[in-house]
Amino acid sequence: MSGVATELKFDERGLIPAVVQNASTLEVLMVAWMNAESLAQTQKLGETVFWSRSRSKFWHKGEESGNVQKVREIRFDCDADVLLILVDPAGPACHTGERTCFFRTL
Amino acid sequence: MSGVATELKFDERGLIPAVVQNASTLEVLMVAWMNAESLAQTQKLGETVFWSRSRSKFWHKGEESGNVQKVREIRFDCDADVLLILVDPAGPACHTGERTCFFRTL
Repeated sequence: MSGVATELKFDERGLIPAVVQNASTLEVLMVAWMNAESLAQTQKLGETVFWSRSRSKFWHKGEESGNVQKVREIRFDCDADVLLILVDPAGPACHTGERTCFFRTL
Repeated sequence: MSGVATELKFDERGLIPAVVQNASTLEVLMVAWMNAESLAQTQKLGETVFWSRSRSKFWHKGEESGNVQKVREIRFDCDADVLLILVDPAGPACHTGERTCFFRTL
């Protein structure tokens, strides 16, 4: 992992939230969690790899569906406890088939 | 609080992460946390009100600096455990004076 990544603040579970945004349209697609290892895999692979809290395993987004997210840029916030990942998505982000997981309004 | 808000899933601390996005430019500005009461205040006031985890108190964004965030729309994701809030910001989102908290790249 790069030196900067070690400055990131992971929570008590070793996780950091990652906001995924379409690099072209700027639509916010989803929010998922990463640990240090899934972030390292993301950087190495150039595609998003999350840590699934419900299944307690790595989750290479699109590995089965083909809807991978190619990583264009990884940003982090002033507190270094949230990631913003700009991607080129190969398909819908949401498991429902919607382009973004944020398809409902309060 | 509206009926829909009661469907939201708050975590074991009673919190839900809120991604704040500029409604016009679509720039992601910050991520902060809300509890049910700060979400209700946000809806009532039409400006973002978060729950500060470090200070354990409500945080009406911009109350002191004037950099309030007028709420245009509140969305939530397929798991109903993340909010996406589209805002018109009156000034910079970041306490550093940067327009967005995500001003650094990994």
